[in-house]
Amino acid sequence: MGPHPAVADIRRAVREALADVDQDALILAACSGGADSLALAAALAFVAPRMRLRAGLLTVDHQLQPGSKARAATVKDLGEALGLTPAEILTVTVGKEGGPEAAAREARYAALDEAAERLRATAVLLGHTRDDQAETVLLGLARGSGPRSLSGMAAGSGRYRRPLLDLPRQTTVAACRAQSLTPWDDPHNEDERYTRVRVRRTVLPVLESELGPGVAQALARTAAMAREDADALDEWAESAYQNCALSDIGESVKLKAAELEKLPTAVRRRVLRRAAMAAGSPSGALSATHVLAVDRLITHWRGQKAVDLPGGLSAVRRYGTLIFAISPIP
Amino acid sequence: MGPHPAVADIRRAVREALADVDQDALILAACSGGADSLALAAALAFVAPRMRLRAGLLTVDHQLQPGSKARAATVKDLGEALGLTPAEILTVTVGKEGGPEAAAREARYAALDEAAERLRATAVLLGHTRDDQAETVLLGLARGSGPRSLSGMAAGSGRYRRPLLDLPRQTTVAACRAQSLTPWDDPHNEDERYTRVRVRRTVLPVLESELGPGVAQALARTAAMAREDADALDEWAESAYQNCALSDIGESVKLKAAELEKLPTAVRRRVLRRAAMAAGSPSGALSATHVLAVDRLITHWRGQKAVDLPGGLSAVRRYGTLIFAISPIP
Repeated sequence: MGPHPAVADIRRAVREALADVDQDALILAACSGGADSLALAAALAFVAPRMRLRAGLLTVDHQLQPGSKARAATVKDLGEALGLTPAEILTVTVGKEGGPEAAAREARYAALDEAAERLRATAVLLGHTRDDQAETVLLGLARGSGPRSLSGMAAGSGRYRRPLLDLPRQTTVAACRAQSLTPWDDPHNEDERYTRVRVRRTVLPVLESELGPGVAQALARTAAMAREDADALDEWAESAYQNCALSDIGESVKLKAAELEKLPTAVRRRVLRRAAMAAGSPSGALSATHVLAVDRLITHWRGQKAVDLPGGLSAVRRYGTLIFAISPIP
Repeated sequence: MGPHPAVADIRRAVREALADVDQDALILAACSGGADSLALAAALAFVAPRMRLRAGLLTVDHQLQPGSKARAATVKDLGEALGLTPAEILTVTVGKEGGPEAAAREARYAALDEAAERLRATAVLLGHTRDDQAETVLLGLARGSGPRSLSGMAAGSGRYRRPLLDLPRQTTVAACRAQSLTPWDDPHNEDERYTRVRVRRTVLPVLESELGPGVAQALARTAAMAREDADALDEWAESAYQNCALSDIGESVKLKAAELEKLPTAVRRRVLRRAAMAAGSPSGALSATHVLAVDRLITHWRGQKAVDLPGGLSAVRRYGTLIFAISPIP
């Protein structure tokens, strides 16, 4: 008798995610003890020796909840019982910047990065599922910052890989049950103060009931396509930028207006954003409204004055050249 | 004292939407009698003479509800009272194909097209608001058919223009009230059997309450950006198709695999879809799964056999050439 279908699905996903990895490489599963990452760790422990890979486990103690230390120790013990070596607890101190979710995320990835470097791991596997992806897309949609924010999480990004991104969360729950693994239910996952929790518990169920089942899948599909589109447009914008740029020496960037005019709107706006950043405007502060105002120097040129940009910069058009520099531009 | 702010907003939007129209052109407002299109018709009646344009009104009697004839007559009378000439009732018979919403839409646009041709109108204005746009984006999202389905409705498409696409529905309600115009409440707009009605009454309010206000605006912004992105990628795909094509004479299309390999995923898939359609595969039946299978002949080439496509076609790779033709390909 083969394994439970949920277990087989997860093992297959892990195997596919590691198909390109060289023998003897070390792969680490990041495991909180929740159903997603527990099923992931168990699958890695099964798959790795059969692919002649080494497999370990990392669990992060965020020190945010009472008992977090004991829980991390339980996850580490389980990792060792599964044969994952090394199995390490990474204890972090979470700051305040950007809100509790962002601060915890930053501390977690810093610790995972450090451990992966130190252990010379080839890849770190994360347990995000299709449901997490759907939530991420909805959060991006609510921000309204365009297709890039709909791209959700990448299946692979640097050393991080997300083998379960096409599987529903329910599969990980079933896989844990079939293997008698008891997942830890993070109380933060039930805390309605977090937007993501409200998306999971309220928004997605309403979408499923009103628009029909399969919404999570549709959102994940949208994310994958939006990511491909955004990648292609970034590639085009990069080559268009090289083609439009007269100079980007020092702190001033000069672009040929006539070349900008030939580009489709989506590409031209990306080139303008890139130029503003190359001139020193901080990307976080540079809004779509700023880019739009600069774009009007190209599309609606009627001798406007300089457009102020974050970072003490401005953009001005002179004799067919668009100049980004520290203001005032002489 | 100037007009009520809502009235001023709508007049400004209509004026901007008609800025490029030549003098003496005829502009028609399509008016159901609902708040959106009533506010639109009133604004057109005010703005047109001041822009030296002629303005008329069309109202469609779908003959789907008791009293629809009398209501159409009321809208026509109101149009005439506003000075909109001609004011016409277009009586249509709605079929069944594609469901009640799609069939009504098809009959409506066919009648509007016919009237616009006959009256030699330059533009037909439609009363869709930002809320309609947000609903359309959510419906597209639930289909999961990618960024093009997130593009929502165009501000301008052929003779149709949607001046109110950036304004909330509430502005049209306020504008009607301020001008003592009594909008008709279409009972279909309250009928929960329609997915769009459920999106309006249940889904969007839940999104607003859980993700914060401004969701409709964020969705509309996403639509605008997704449309620009899709336009740019279609442009790229068109030129890439010309560059990859060896021939598209008759019913076979041949593409150079080596050229396809150089393209980013988003562009390559668009080229493959276009090639399948050029060879005769019906676009409605051609799914993302079909395109993906063809794409694997490029990205994962291991001597696969032909891929079957809708319309009795197949795609096969031979000696570096990807061939789309009636199957079996000899």
